Amino acid sequence: MLKYYQEHGGLPVNVKFYVEGEEEIGSRHVIKYTEAHQQQLQADAVIWEGGAKNAAGQLAITGGLKGISCIELGVTTANADLHSSKAAYAESAPWRLTKALASLRDDMTGQIKIEGLYDDVTALTAAENAFVEQLAFDPTQVAQAEGLTRPLLATKPKQALANEPTINIEGITAGYQEAGVKTVLPRLATAKLDFRLAPSQDPARIPDLVRKQLAKNGFEDVKVNYLVGQPGYRSDVQHPFVKLVNESARAIYGADGVEYVLNSAGAGPAYAFGRLLGLPVLGFGIGNANSRAHGANENIKLNDAVQAVSLLDRVLQQL
Amino acid sequence: MLKYYQEHGGLPVNVKFYVEGEEEIGSRHVIKYTEAHQQQLQADAVIWEGGAKNAAGQLAITGGLKGISCIELGVTTANADLHSSKAAYAESAPWRLTKALASLRDDMTGQIKIEGLYDDVTALTAAENAFVEQLAFDPTQVAQAEGLTRPLLATKPKQALANEPTINIEGITAGYQEAGVKTVLPRLATAKLDFRLAPSQDPARIPDLVRKQLAKNGFEDVKVNYLVGQPGYRSDVQHPFVKLVNESARAIYGADGVEYVLNSAGAGPAYAFGRLLGLPVLGFGIGNANSRAHGANENIKLNDAVQAVSLLDRVLQQL
Repeated sequence: MLKYYQEHGGLPVNVKFYVEGEEEIGSRHVIKYTEAHQQQLQADAVIWEGGAKNAAGQLAITGGLKGISCIELGVTTANADLHSSKAAYAESAPWRLTKALASLRDDMTGQIKIEGLYDDVTALTAAENAFVEQLAFDPTQVAQAEGLTRPLLATKPKQALANEPTINIEGITAGYQEAGVKTVLPRLATAKLDFRLAPSQDPARIPDLVRKQLAKNGFEDVKVNYLVGQPGYRSDVQHPFVKLVNESARAIYGADGVEYVLNSAGAGPAYAFGRLLGLPVLGFGIGNANSRAHGANENIKLNDAVQAVSLLDRVLQQL
Repeated sequence: MLKYYQEHGGLPVNVKFYVEGEEEIGSRHVIKYTEAHQQQLQADAVIWEGGAKNAAGQLAITGGLKGISCIELGVTTANADLHSSKAAYAESAPWRLTKALASLRDDMTGQIKIEGLYDDVTALTAAENAFVEQLAFDPTQVAQAEGLTRPLLATKPKQALANEPTINIEGITAGYQEAGVKTVLPRLATAKLDFRLAPSQDPARIPDLVRKQLAKNGFEDVKVNYLVGQPGYRSDVQHPFVKLVNESARAIYGADGVEYVLNSAGAGPAYAFGRLLGLPVLGFGIGNANSRAHGANENIKLNDAVQAVSLLDRVLQQL
């Protein structure tokens, strides 16, 4: 951008930068800030801060993110841990919790058994589905690379990644966990869950839906604590900016060098710009499939950086 | 005993002492040792090393112990923990484990849903049941004292404590357990279980029964690891030694000062003496309901010690 500015004495469009430092802890203030500064932040499109080439070396352009809702389930069954001989009459916390969890999901399909949870999922349009079908996802290769010991849960994993809500146990803990045995009947058990949500879904609904379903299943004693959440967002695939970025990318990366991802299966505050400001939000960047983001030896390839700068240059000029 | 010896120049019966130091780690060598020394250990009856007064101040005489079988369940579903967005297609270890556990037990009754598990449970005889019925166990008081938040699992808790097998989750662990959230899909999940067994049951059968039932329920991938176990034992309530000790105790503690417990709901190596040597095994001692065994401020009351020595004296003279 600096180079363009120096060469041309200005930029062909106005550029606003939005920098926030809370992405790794849930971007808790982005929506609030964006709401308060909508006038100031008006624009024609948003270029998201990151992106990478996929394993096949294609640049992935990402049109949004899934939502997420994180909750904690907790059960208390007694004043103190009991001697396990009392299992003859006393219910224990881990039994309550495992039964409660098991009642929320079909383990053969991953389908969530919570009434109303799928109500605000909007089905993929034909245009969206066409993009999804173009993605590379070989179930056999994925299963082998990740060492999966169980069959894939989804018959259409690409669609599931883009648009299906999931219920995941991040962690579960109760009682004695060291070596050997300890004949204790645990009074406490907790589980952390995250729900990945279709971009159309409202994460704030989740805790209450879980509470109601647990009560319905006979687990009204299981406490549900909302930890953090974020709505998703998916850019309108018909928006001219989507076409512009895709075509610019193909000019630079080659006709087969680009994939368009409807929305990442991950979460992030795209909602604040997409839905609040009504803008398309597209992410692309300089990473590669082995960039080890946030890890040891995080890396980029210099050529990828040069290509990404060229893409940015081209997009700004075409706007 | 020393006092009696000094006063009488001898004891009225032969006394053999058996001392072992592994009780707190499962008494792994008692059965082996006893088998190898059966001739040497022949006797008419066994007095067990401990006992206490109950909360009502009655001396509890215990005629045996339940058995126990401890196993660990383990599930592995991938090479590494995955990003939780992959829940769209990848099964996770804690889901497998919670579903597998939930399939093994009726949470309304505590009934174990493992085929064959109740096969070697011998029903209480009328004489045994009469002893059980005499025990003090007020469900309301127990629930209040222990702060139980769930209904009692057993309609007949006294019988359940004496003779019903139980399946208990000692501990369960998977994934992230610290504060906040971590959007991980855990590859590993484990649970430690203990089964308390009726004195007639064989603990060595348990791991295989669990394995078969899990496979039957569709969880053949859940690994079952046998940790430690011990058969139980219950003395024949018709044996003259039971009558002798009970009558001696009533003479010292008063007609209402004694309760006879068919067998403790806990575990211990009584089997080695009871079943291998074919002897009645009765436990009684100098503890009280608040002795805090193994805990801080472990204590006995001096009068309880004097009473227990008198009982021992009387029993030895009556034999």
